[in-house]
Amino acid sequence: MTTDTVPKVAEARAGAARVVGLAKGVGMIEPDMATLITLFLTDAEIGSDELDQLFRRVIDRTFNALSIDTDTSTSDTAAIMASGAAGPVAPSDLEAALHTVALSLTRQVARDGEGATTLIEVTVDGAADDTQAKRVAKTIVNSPLVKTAVHGADPNWGRVAMAVGKCSDDTDIDQERVVIRFGTQEVYPRPLDEDGLAALAGYMKGDEVLVHVSLGLGDGAFTVYGCDLSDQYVRINADYTT
Amino acid sequence: MTTDTVPKVAEARAGAARVVGLAKGVGMIEPDMATLITLFLTDAEIGSDELDQLFRRVIDRTFNALSIDTDTSTSDTAAIMASGAAGPVAPSDLEAALHTVALSLTRQVARDGEGATTLIEVTVDGAADDTQAKRVAKTIVNSPLVKTAVHGADPNWGRVAMAVGKCSDDTDIDQERVVIRFGTQEVYPRPLDEDGLAALAGYMKGDEVLVHVSLGLGDGAFTVYGCDLSDQYVRINADYTT
Repeated sequence: MTTDTVPKVAEARAGAARVVGLAKGVGMIEPDMATLITLFLTDAEIGSDELDQLFRRVIDRTFNALSIDTDTSTSDTAAIMASGAAGPVAPSDLEAALHTVALSLTRQVARDGEGATTLIEVTVDGAADDTQAKRVAKTIVNSPLVKTAVHGADPNWGRVAMAVGKCSDDTDIDQERVVIRFGTQEVYPRPLDEDGLAALAGYMKGDEVLVHVSLGLGDGAFTVYGCDLSDQYVRINADYTT
Repeated sequence: MTTDTVPKVAEARAGAARVVGLAKGVGMIEPDMATLITLFLTDAEIGSDELDQLFRRVIDRTFNALSIDTDTSTSDTAAIMASGAAGPVAPSDLEAALHTVALSLTRQVARDGEGATTLIEVTVDGAADDTQAKRVAKTIVNSPLVKTAVHGADPNWGRVAMAVGKCSDDTDIDQERVVIRFGTQEVYPRPLDEDGLAALAGYMKGDEVLVHVSLGLGDGAFTVYGCDLSDQYVRINADYTT
C-alpha cells in the first residue's frame, strides 16, 4: 500500500535521563489517539500519574496536532515506558525533553505522509483562545485547496483566507484584523512587490512551508502539522485494493 | 482553472406552473449557502414568505447536502424568482417540483466536480435522528480514502467503516448494528462470495456509486452528494496560480 515508509526516531535528554521515541504511519492519519503507533522510552524515574499527565499535554501539542488526510485510524497508539534507571529528574525537564522528541516524530510523520513532498506547518496566533486557534489551524492544514496550492508551490493566500472563513460563524473572526504570512513574509493584507514575490517563489519550492495566520483577537495560539496533497497520494490510495 | 465546466439546467412541473433551475460551479464546493451559484425560476404564484420557507427546506436536502472538496466558497448563492404568471399552485406540488429541479442540479454539480469521474451518493439511514445521519453521511462522502477507493473502483467497505468510526464518540453508534452496502449489495457484515464480488466490481466501475449505511438505531435518514478524488483534481488545483 505505501511507498517510502522511513523509520521515525527521535531522542532528547532531561538532566541525567534520556528520552527516545519511535513512530510509524504514512496515511489514514489524523490522530485522535486512535494505525499510527508511537512509542517513547525514558530512563527517568517518575510516578505513573505524573508521567501520564505530562505525556497527555505533550501528545496534545504534537501527535494530536498532526493530520495527513483527515482520516482517523481506529488504532492510533502513543505509549511511554519509564525504567527509572537514571533516577529522578525535574518533571519540567522531562516534559521539555518529551516534547522535543514527540515534536520531532510528529514532523517526521508529516514529512513521510503518503505522496507528500512538503511538510506544512500552520501556526495560528492572536486567537481568542487556544481552542479557536487549533480549529482554524486544522481547517487550513486539512483544506485540499491549500494542500494542492502548496504542492504547486503557489503562495495562494486566497485559499488560506477561504479556510479561515469556512470555520468562522461570521462573528468570531474579524476579517479586518487577519494577517497571513508564508514563512515570515506577509502576503495579506499588505501585498507583495515583484522582488518579494520572487523571493517567496523560492521559499514555496522548499520541502517545508510555514503558514502563519494572526487573528488579532487575543492570546490563543496553536501549531499543527500536515503535508501537501499530491497526485501520488491519489494513486497510492486508488490503486490499492483489499 | 477548470476543465469541462458543463451547463447545469433542470426543469419540473407543479400543476400549471413550471420550475426551471440553473447552476454553476466545479470546485471549492461544500455549500453552506455561501462560488456556487444556482438560480431557480418559476411562473407559480406564491407569497414570498411561504416560498422562502419551502425553498430553504429544499436547499437543505439538495445543495447543502453537496460536497466536492470540503472547501466552502465565500459566495455560494441560491436564488429563486416566482413570476406568478401561471397562477396559484398547491405549495406541496411546488415544493416537490423545486426539489426535483434542485436535486437534479445538485447531482449535475457533483458529477462535474473538478477531476471527478464518478458521482458518489451516500445515504445513511437508521440513525438516531436526521442530524446524526447527515453528520455520518458527510464524513463518508468527504473522506479522501473513501473518495480515492471509489476512484480506483474498489468496494473498500473498511474505509467506509473507518469514516463512520471517526465521527462517532464511541457511545452514539453501535458497531454491531451497522450494515454497509454498495448500491443494493451488502458488503458488511455479511461477506460477499466470488460471484457477488465479480458483480460488484462491475458496479464500482460505473459513473455513479451509492454507499448505503444503516445504523440500526432509529428513523433518522439523510442523503448527501459528492464525487471521487482523482489525480486530475490535484493537477487542476496544484497547477493553477493566482
